[in-house]
Amino acid sequence: MPDPIHDLYDVIARRRDVRAEFAGRPPTDAVLHRVLAAAHAAPSVGHTQPWDFVLVRDLGLRDAFAAHVATEREVFASSLSVERAETFSRIKVEGVRESGLGVVVTYDPSRGGPHVLGRHAIADAGLYSSVLAIQNLWLAATAEGLGVGWVSFYREEFLAELLGVPEGVRPLAWLCVGEVTGLQDRPDLERHGWRQRRPLEEAVHCDRYGSGGL
Amino acid sequence: MPDPIHDLYDVIARRRDVRAEFAGRPPTDAVLHRVLAAAHAAPSVGHTQPWDFVLVRDLGLRDAFAAHVATEREVFASSLSVERAETFSRIKVEGVRESGLGVVVTYDPSRGGPHVLGRHAIADAGLYSSVLAIQNLWLAATAEGLGVGWVSFYREEFLAELLGVPEGVRPLAWLCVGEVTGLQDRPDLERHGWRQRRPLEEAVHCDRYGSGGL
Repeated sequence: MPDPIHDLYDVIARRRDVRAEFAGRPPTDAVLHRVLAAAHAAPSVGHTQPWDFVLVRDLGLRDAFAAHVATEREVFASSLSVERAETFSRIKVEGVRESGLGVVVTYDPSRGGPHVLGRHAIADAGLYSSVLAIQNLWLAATAEGLGVGWVSFYREEFLAELLGVPEGVRPLAWLCVGEVTGLQDRPDLERHGWRQRRPLEEAVHCDRYGSGGL
Repeated sequence: MPDPIHDLYDVIARRRDVRAEFAGRPPTDAVLHRVLAAAHAAPSVGHTQPWDFVLVRDLGLRDAFAAHVATEREVFASSLSVERAETFSRIKVEGVRESGLGVVVTYDPSRGGPHVLGRHAIADAGLYSSVLAIQNLWLAATAEGLGVGWVSFYREEFLAELLGVPEGVRPLAWLCVGEVTGLQDRPDLERHGWRQRRPLEEAVHCDRYGSGGL
């Protein structure tokens, strides 16, 4: 298991989206508490804190979710060209069973009542808040030497039904969280030739989109 | 200006959504580069990196945006009860002029082509990636002793037109970024009695939503 590191820039650089490196052990309760507290300290529109965290340890639930993900993997694979399908076939998309713990992060738009400060003009602003909490969680887990893998090969309705998430509340992410044997130096999708990193310079613009920046 | 701090948990705890504490100076180029590089190191669905960062320094653009935000503030204020409007009247919602720099973060759904790995089942997964980048940026800026304030009192179409953002690309956030005189210990909306923090225990569930957790 990697050593804990706490320097923010080191954590940001070391953070990976983990699939294959889970060691089969969930985090200890003390570590998990620190990681969840970090997530819960995220900013939120109108201070609504619209997130919840469902800790999925039950093996039956994790098996059912993994089977659903396998089906969705096939749906995606069948949309690809032969060449891309071949590249994709080498890429692992989840560690639902191996990680030992799923953390499902939800978004409840009703939190904060009808007049959420800062959401009247941008309907998605509440959704963004739950995603900010995910990044805090991901970085804290990395700092603790854990791995996190965000699984997105699923249908929200399936997961909502599986965990009894009430209507109107959206399960935004299934995060596999657990101890790892190590973290890769480069993202899996780069290593497997799926897609390369974009230079920062291309992403920065001055005063006008498309102007060129740094 | 606060000292730089690099311990992840300290940064997460100290981070605030800044409105009133901007000192009128944008970050230096070297600091800004580190902050943008941190944002650019965020995870993204299918490694698409769908974000862009428009650095808005031009005073005319910042004035025009601030005037638009003032109008949207009135729209929200007029929706409130007398009592809530009175509380809201004490809350500052932006530091567009005072911060010295706006960083507009956009989301381009076309990045990554038609077959984005991990987005076929969840249309919003690309949107989430740009939000993860925002949280990296926010934490890195906090580590550098800067303040960040996310302004959400605006219409996306207005901002897109102001900065020449092409059709289909969404401006998700205007972040005021600049040097600050200090950071508040508690969120503005708590201090002003708008809304209090929710206990972590209420946000955590085991295996089933609503089950109670920690």
